Amino acid sequence: MTTHTNLNKQWKLKARPVGEPTLENWDYNEAEVPSIGDGELLVKVLYVSLDPAMRGWLNDAKSYIEPVQIGDVMRAGTVGQVIESKHDGFSEGDFVVGYAGVQQYAVSDGKGLHKVDPALAPLSTYLGVLGMPGMTGYFGLLKSGEPKSGETVVVSGAAGAVGGLVGQIAKIKGCRVVGIAGGEDKCKFLIDELGFDAAIDYKNENVKKALKEACPKGVDVFFDNVGGQILDDVLTQINFKARIVICGAISQYNNTTPVKGPSNYLSLLVNRARMEGIVVFDNVKEYPIAMKEIGGWIQSGQLKVKEHIVEGIETFPDTLMMLFKGENFGKLILKVGEQQ
Amino acid sequence: MTTHTNLNKQWKLKARPVGEPTLENWDYNEAEVPSIGDGELLVKVLYVSLDPAMRGWLNDAKSYIEPVQIGDVMRAGTVGQVIESKHDGFSEGDFVVGYAGVQQYAVSDGKGLHKVDPALAPLSTYLGVLGMPGMTGYFGLLKSGEPKSGETVVVSGAAGAVGGLVGQIAKIKGCRVVGIAGGEDKCKFLIDELGFDAAIDYKNENVKKALKEACPKGVDVFFDNVGGQILDDVLTQINFKARIVICGAISQYNNTTPVKGPSNYLSLLVNRARMEGIVVFDNVKEYPIAMKEIGGWIQSGQLKVKEHIVEGIETFPDTLMMLFKGENFGKLILKVGEQQ
Repeated sequence: MTTHTNLNKQWKLKARPVGEPTLENWDYNEAEVPSIGDGELLVKVLYVSLDPAMRGWLNDAKSYIEPVQIGDVMRAGTVGQVIESKHDGFSEGDFVVGYAGVQQYAVSDGKGLHKVDPALAPLSTYLGVLGMPGMTGYFGLLKSGEPKSGETVVVSGAAGAVGGLVGQIAKIKGCRVVGIAGGEDKCKFLIDELGFDAAIDYKNENVKKALKEACPKGVDVFFDNVGGQILDDVLTQINFKARIVICGAISQYNNTTPVKGPSNYLSLLVNRARMEGIVVFDNVKEYPIAMKEIGGWIQSGQLKVKEHIVEGIETFPDTLMMLFKGENFGKLILKVGEQQ
Repeated sequence: MTTHTNLNKQWKLKARPVGEPTLENWDYNEAEVPSIGDGELLVKVLYVSLDPAMRGWLNDAKSYIEPVQIGDVMRAGTVGQVIESKHDGFSEGDFVVGYAGVQQYAVSDGKGLHKVDPALAPLSTYLGVLGMPGMTGYFGLLKSGEPKSGETVVVSGAAGAVGGLVGQIAKIKGCRVVGIAGGEDKCKFLIDELGFDAAIDYKNENVKKALKEACPKGVDVFFDNVGGQILDDVLTQINFKARIVICGAISQYNNTTPVKGPSNYLSLLVNRARMEGIVVFDNVKEYPIAMKEIGGWIQSGQLKVKEHIVEGIETFPDTLMMLFKGENFGKLILKVGEQQ
């Protein structure tokens, strides 16, 4: 049996946020590390995934997944290491991805846990391009966006975990790719590092005007992570039979007023275009195909991985907010432990 | 050569409306009946189609069709009779559908004119179930809505030209059909005459609450002619993989403020649903198939035709407004002449 410290630092939901989640909404707790029974295993959490979707899980509303309940450890995707096992399927030392939550240790009966190989890709990657954001971008773009070579693909939140991947896959598919992101550094990165054809800095540019210049042939696919005014601006530039993939609306998640609906949605009618929502879980059976293809692109150098790793479970409430302030640059990950 | 009166009463666009079109926007004109040259023919207009889409044609904006220009005779679908012909393809006495505009006589070179047979169906029908609204409803529902037997289909503007047809076709396809319309009479008509399973009176009921009752299994297909709050209400009730067909947004066409975008559009994401715009002209090649099938349903009694015919070209500005006030009951048609 591996030794471990006796404390399990964890963050629980204290109260549902109205608007932006603040410190008031969270309960920091130091619990005993739990012990395991037959058929169970103990995971030491190494990396916690921080994703915009987490904001939605805090609302007490019907959605694609149950809300996190008050008093629960906050739900989060994680990579961890098995440090004790009474489960036939897992051995001490195994690396596993799953939803262990925002804490340092978790007991599991093995359900929803999957072993991953750190020799094939860095562990954090399993929360990014080989994890939920990767699967979201891959299936969302290819199945709903259906980009064809020569078409123009626009992606918002382009320097984020999903957006960066979507743009790069669209490039691999032979499209003209335009990213929308906040700030000069991110825009420069999209072009210089990820190979986007153009980038629009929504914080400093008139997006509608910039889109006209960056998309002289109009927009065939829009992969939207942000919603709000940017969605409305892109709607004015779409082509006949355009496809708009609704992946998220991070600009609206902390609203205390109603969500801003796309005022220009009748552009769908004028252009016989479609707007479709996606949720990653629908493609679970095909994850291995996507992981293999993405892994291949990484190895061949066609796809670059950008991660933003922040250390220390104590920082969770502030680090989560980086997503909504647009402060993360690449996939945001909280490092909470060292592998043994 | 047939004799005709020497006046051609017509309505021209005088000024683009801001908000609701009023008398100020129209120019009533009594012109000479034009004479024809070689390869031309003269049409006496019998019926003029009044459709919500006409409001869009008045705006100077990029759309699926060129705007009507100031000083032009107002564009409109028509059924007429050829009363003089120097065109090889048409003979005096032929009945023709086309876009002769809001006037009593029109010269044509035959382009865009199609002969119709009054023995197969009443002439006015060629502006309704066998015309543009018919094709819109048929292809919009079947191609974009993709209703399956046992599913729940909701249609707004259900007592209008398109909505009434859509609901009846959905019934033929084995769906549960719920119509949304304004007023008790229309709702009663939908159930008693057209065979809808339920009807919601948006003028006197809480639509969201009524939808919950009328659609206990949720909404699989929504065919939307009205937009605005009704679209938002239906979005709260859609099922996994629902299809929303955006055919129009009559509630928004006379807005002087920005169109109300669907605040609940993220329901598309939660439910992996899609919203798609349609325009009838994309299916021109398949019109004959649709007309044959619709004609068959009428003959077998499975499909009922409801028309609202107003007489007199002089009434055009007011009669057009009936559409936006929800005063028409069935396909709105202006009768402007008698066949010879």
